[in-house]
Amino acid sequence: MTEILKGSLVAKKIKESMAERIKELESKGKTSTIGVVRLGSDPSDISYEKSIIKSCEKLGIKSIVYEKDENISTDDLMQFMDVLNKNDYISGILLFRPLPKHIDEERIRTSISPDKDVDCMHPLNLELIFEGDMEGFAPATPKAAMEILIHNNIELEGKNVVIINRSMVVGKPLAMMLLQKNATVTICHSRTKNLEELTRNADIVVTALGKAKYFDKKYFTEKSIVIDVGVSLDREGNLSGDVDFDSVSDFVEAITPVPGGVGSVTTTVLLNQVVKACFRQLTEDR
Amino acid sequence: MTEILKGSLVAKKIKESMAERIKELESKGKTSTIGVVRLGSDPSDISYEKSIIKSCEKLGIKSIVYEKDENISTDDLMQFMDVLNKNDYISGILLFRPLPKHIDEERIRTSISPDKDVDCMHPLNLELIFEGDMEGFAPATPKAAMEILIHNNIELEGKNVVIINRSMVVGKPLAMMLLQKNATVTICHSRTKNLEELTRNADIVVTALGKAKYFDKKYFTEKSIVIDVGVSLDREGNLSGDVDFDSVSDFVEAITPVPGGVGSVTTTVLLNQVVKACFRQLTEDR
Repeated sequence: MTEILKGSLVAKKIKESMAERIKELESKGKTSTIGVVRLGSDPSDISYEKSIIKSCEKLGIKSIVYEKDENISTDDLMQFMDVLNKNDYISGILLFRPLPKHIDEERIRTSISPDKDVDCMHPLNLELIFEGDMEGFAPATPKAAMEILIHNNIELEGKNVVIINRSMVVGKPLAMMLLQKNATVTICHSRTKNLEELTRNADIVVTALGKAKYFDKKYFTEKSIVIDVGVSLDREGNLSGDVDFDSVSDFVEAITPVPGGVGSVTTTVLLNQVVKACFRQLTEDR
Repeated sequence: MTEILKGSLVAKKIKESMAERIKELESKGKTSTIGVVRLGSDPSDISYEKSIIKSCEKLGIKSIVYEKDENISTDDLMQFMDVLNKNDYISGILLFRPLPKHIDEERIRTSISPDKDVDCMHPLNLELIFEGDMEGFAPATPKAAMEILIHNNIELEGKNVVIINRSMVVGKPLAMMLLQKNATVTICHSRTKNLEELTRNADIVVTALGKAKYFDKKYFTEKSIVIDVGVSLDREGNLSGDVDFDSVSDFVEAITPVPGGVGSVTTTVLLNQVVKACFRQLTEDR
């Protein structure tokens, strides 16, 4: 029988460990606080923001939203980042992306203090991921995929993992995290020719293509463990992963559902990094 | 018949293009200059240094060697790096590695100006490689492997490339460079289980294991293109690659020899980056 790898169970475990650390911080007079910076009022930003605020309330993390004009200049945004960097009450900064086109993202991402960069935008934090250093901040989505694998005790050492995505927010950092766990990693993308052969030969397949129900049964075997990072709308307008869940969910060994899989762990991972940032700042204060 | 991918031909082509750019710089009053920093007098450092000086002389690049006591402190070495950073005559800095154990490499590598970091030690330059930005400085060995593939017009798009190495100086940056050329990349290492199957299914295999003659015929097919980055001594004390060259050189489609393959391109790649650095500094001066 196919095991359904639910994100909620993983998120619950992470939250339990967070609760203890948040209490410990409180006992030392520190409140984990996320500064959320939103430019303009894009509906998907606002929806994400609401879910963050709600999660923060449940966990005992303070959230402060800074809404800025979407026409803010790069210089002004950099200056604002510096204000947040210097504000001792802010543990971590989340700047919603994608940024408006006129903003120079390269300058912005280096203007966030690496110590408060809980969304892993700063090149110095990304380089640590490249090196396989897992002590720092990681991009939330690949980290959530890792948490699902690890919490479900899925063996990674020596396993063949195929990742279908080569972006800096999913595929590449995930490859580095898996290498660090001694998996053999193949990075695939739109130009990959024999994808079906590669996925069928893999022990674990991570898809992040963004095409609803693209992968059916023929891409997998009965031993496949499938982590579906894709989120898009299917023809009927329903949220769907990259994998045709109904066609493979009684066939593969294990699969994450969409919704309810990787996506339901990312916010927890992000907030966990806010708590981590707060802890670090506590240690540095001493 | 197996094609032998000689490094010397590739190095020659790169040097021809360098010669023109060095002349152009000279006409503008700029001399490409490498500052070589050696701690102590390890024989292999001195041997590498001599070959760099010789190559520089042939190309019209100025080389200045700074020999420092091997017991120099991290702080003093950082200060010296800053002296070189500020010296307008130095285009690029090469600090021999491995560094003595008492040196804090993390602090040293961030003390080299990213603009003079021709050996790609600085995290900001490594992060650019991670992103697939090929305009900056790259680690010389993987870049040399790429030059051999590109100068020999070996198709990379959609090809399956297996890399046997996951280090920050070879495997990981090479994977990023190959992804940028639209290859499908698999990163293998000591914990990889079915290596023979993986290499046989690949179009291109890059080995950087450091075990003389480890890979024999059974790892390859008649269509394999083999890039051998390994350099070690075989039982008879001769320089050897990872691949048992004699057993496969009449079998695979193409292979780089050792010596005379990748290693004979690395110094040229490094010096090419010195010229690149000099050009950039010229542009910035204006």
